[in-house]
Amino acid sequence: MNETDPLVSEDQSAFPFMGEVPIMGPRCRVGVIGATGAVGSTLLKILRERVFPVGEIRVFASPASRGNWIETPFGSLMVEVLSRRRPPDLDLAFMAAGRDTARMWGWKLARRGTVVIDKSSYFRDKDYAPLVVPEVNADDLESSRGIIANPNCTTIPLVLALAPLHQHYGLRHLTAVSFQSVSGAGRRGLAALEAEHADEDAAPSAFPHRIAGNVIPWIGGRAGRRSEEELKMVLETRRILKAPRLSIQTTCVRVPTRIGHAIAVHAEFRRRIPLEEARRLLADAPGVKLRDKPSEHQYPTPLEAAGQDITLVGRVRRDRGPNCLAFFLAADNLRKGAALNAVQIAETMLLRGLIPHSL
Amino acid sequence: MNETDPLVSEDQSAFPFMGEVPIMGPRCRVGVIGATGAVGSTLLKILRERVFPVGEIRVFASPASRGNWIETPFGSLMVEVLSRRRPPDLDLAFMAAGRDTARMWGWKLARRGTVVIDKSSYFRDKDYAPLVVPEVNADDLESSRGIIANPNCTTIPLVLALAPLHQHYGLRHLTAVSFQSVSGAGRRGLAALEAEHADEDAAPSAFPHRIAGNVIPWIGGRAGRRSEEELKMVLETRRILKAPRLSIQTTCVRVPTRIGHAIAVHAEFRRRIPLEEARRLLADAPGVKLRDKPSEHQYPTPLEAAGQDITLVGRVRRDRGPNCLAFFLAADNLRKGAALNAVQIAETMLLRGLIPHSL
Repeated sequence: MNETDPLVSEDQSAFPFMGEVPIMGPRCRVGVIGATGAVGSTLLKILRERVFPVGEIRVFASPASRGNWIETPFGSLMVEVLSRRRPPDLDLAFMAAGRDTARMWGWKLARRGTVVIDKSSYFRDKDYAPLVVPEVNADDLESSRGIIANPNCTTIPLVLALAPLHQHYGLRHLTAVSFQSVSGAGRRGLAALEAEHADEDAAPSAFPHRIAGNVIPWIGGRAGRRSEEELKMVLETRRILKAPRLSIQTTCVRVPTRIGHAIAVHAEFRRRIPLEEARRLLADAPGVKLRDKPSEHQYPTPLEAAGQDITLVGRVRRDRGPNCLAFFLAADNLRKGAALNAVQIAETMLLRGLIPHSL
Repeated sequence: MNETDPLVSEDQSAFPFMGEVPIMGPRCRVGVIGATGAVGSTLLKILRERVFPVGEIRVFASPASRGNWIETPFGSLMVEVLSRRRPPDLDLAFMAAGRDTARMWGWKLARRGTVVIDKSSYFRDKDYAPLVVPEVNADDLESSRGIIANPNCTTIPLVLALAPLHQHYGLRHLTAVSFQSVSGAGRRGLAALEAEHADEDAAPSAFPHRIAGNVIPWIGGRAGRRSEEELKMVLETRRILKAPRLSIQTTCVRVPTRIGHAIAVHAEFRRRIPLEEARRLLADAPGVKLRDKPSEHQYPTPLEAAGQDITLVGRVRRDRGPNCLAFFLAADNLRKGAALNAVQIAETMLLRGLIPHSL
C-alpha cells in the first residue's frame, strides 16, 4: 500500500458542508461492522462527507484488530469485536464484513431494533430483505423488516443506467461484460496489485493468478459453469428491475485497476429505442452522468470514475437493429458500488421515518 | 522499456529446430518492412524459430532508423529505407508499417513479383487481397494476385475459435468484448505503460488517457459512433467466415496488460449446440487449446497466452437458450495476432507453390 492510501486519507475539501450546515433533528447511534476494510473505511468517510446525523459511532472488526485505534473522519476510534453476551445497542448498523458475519449477526441486531444495511451477498436473495438502489427502487424499503441488502458493486451502476431505459422501452435481453478493479477484493486485492507491480516475481496472493499486467476471467466462487459474480449480476439485476425472467448473459473479469469498475453493455429492448431519446434518458437519470464525446476523448474510464459519486455512461450507440443499444459505464466500486449506496439507503430510510432514533 | 525486452531478446531454447532440421529446397529473399517495430521484431524472431527458408534477409524502416544496425536472430542487420528509385528485389515482403506504407508500396512490390503480406488494415477490405487465417481459410490464398492481408490482432483468435462452431452450427449473432494489451499500439504503447507505472504523474503519451491502472473503451480512429477497431472486428470476421450479413456487436477496450489480447464472446447459433460437442470442436480446432477447468483456476489469461503460438479458449458455457454459448479466449497479439499469422500465410503459400523463388 503506498502512502497516499485513498481509503483512509482525509481530504478536507471533500467535506464542503462541514461546519456550514447545522445538523438538527435526531441523531443515530451508528455501528460500522468491518470498519477496517476497504468498504468500511469508505463508509466512514462518506458518512462524514454527507453530514449524516451521527450521534454516536462505534467501529467493529475481527478479533485480530480488537483494541486497535483507527483514524477516521470522526476522530480516533477503538475497534471493538461484536460480543454475543453484550450485543451493541445501535439504531443503524452498516455491515461490510462478509456472508458469515451477515448470517450470524443480521437478525440478532435486527431483532434488537437495529436497522441493518448489509453489503454481503447473504441477504440479497431473501424476500424479507429488500435489495435496493435508492434511485431505482427506494419504495421497496417500505416493506423492510429491519434488514436491507446492498447489491453487488457491478449491479448497482448497471441498474442505475438500465432502469430508465427499461421503464420506457422494456428490456428483452442484456449482455454485460465487466472490467472489475482489484479493490473489489478489498484491501487484499489492492495489496496484491501493489506487491506484484513492485516485484515481477511476486507470487499471486489475493487472486489465483498474477493480476498485474493480466486479466482474470473469474471472480468469486463457483455456481456451476458460471462464477458467483456472474450469477449475482443476473439475479440481482432481475430482482431490482422486477424483471424475474429477463435474459441476461454476463462475463465478469478482474483487471489490474485499483478502484472503479467498468461494464460493456449490449442491450436489446422490446420497442424501437431512438438513440437521442436513450441519451436523454441516461443524461437525466439520477446518479448518472453522460460522458459521451469520443471525438474529444470523452468516455467513461474507471480512473475518472474513482472518487466520484456518479456513474459515468458513454459510448452510447446502436450496433444492431433499431431495438438495440450498446453503452459503456464506469463507477467507483467502493463508493456508489458499495459504501455510498449503503449510506443513501440509510438517508432514504431516515427521511421516510423508517429508522427509529434513540438519541 | 525494461532490460528484458521480450520483443528483441533471443532465447535460444525458443529455436528447438535450429541445426537439427536440414533446410532443403529453394530459399526466399525476404524483406521485413517496419522491422524496428513490435510486430517487425517478432516477425524476425518467428521466421527464425520456425526455420523459414530464408536465403537473404533485408530489414526496412522509416528514415529515422536509416543506417542503424539492429540485432536480429539472423545477426546484425543494417536498416534500409525503401527507395522509389531502387526498389528492392524480394520474393517475399512482410509489411508491418501502417496503412500509408501499404498504400504506397503494396502494389509497387507486388508488380515486381514480390509476394506481399501486409499487416495493416489497408488491404483488408480489398477484394483482390485475400484476408487469411491459414487454419480457417487457406484456400483463399489460391486467388491471390500478389498481396495478402493479415487480419487484425483481435479478429485472428476470434475466427480461429468461431470457425469450427460456425461450420457445424451456423452463427446467428455474436457479441464480442475485447481486453486489448498496450503492445497492440506497438512499442509506443509498451513505453507508455512502462513510463506511467514508473511515474504516477506521467502525462499520457500513446493513449489519450493514462492506461496504467485504467481501461480505455476506445481504440483507433472513429467510424461513426463505433471505433475503427470495433468496425474492423465486424467486417473482417464476416469476410473470413464468409458470413457477410452476420450480426455482430462489439466493444473494444484497451487494458493495462503488456502482451496478449483477450475476448469475451457470447454467441447465438442457428441450431441447438450441445455443450460437450462445442468443447470437443474447440479442443480439436487447429491453433486452439482448451483451458477450461475453473475448479483448478484454469481459464485463458493474457499472461499465459503471451509468448505462445496457440489461442487459449475456456469458460465455455451456456447462459441463455440451447442455441447460445459463451466463452473467453486469450492469444498473443504480436505472435498469432500478427507476426505468426503472417509467417503461417507465407509457409502455406510456399507449400502450395504460390511464392516464386529466385535463390
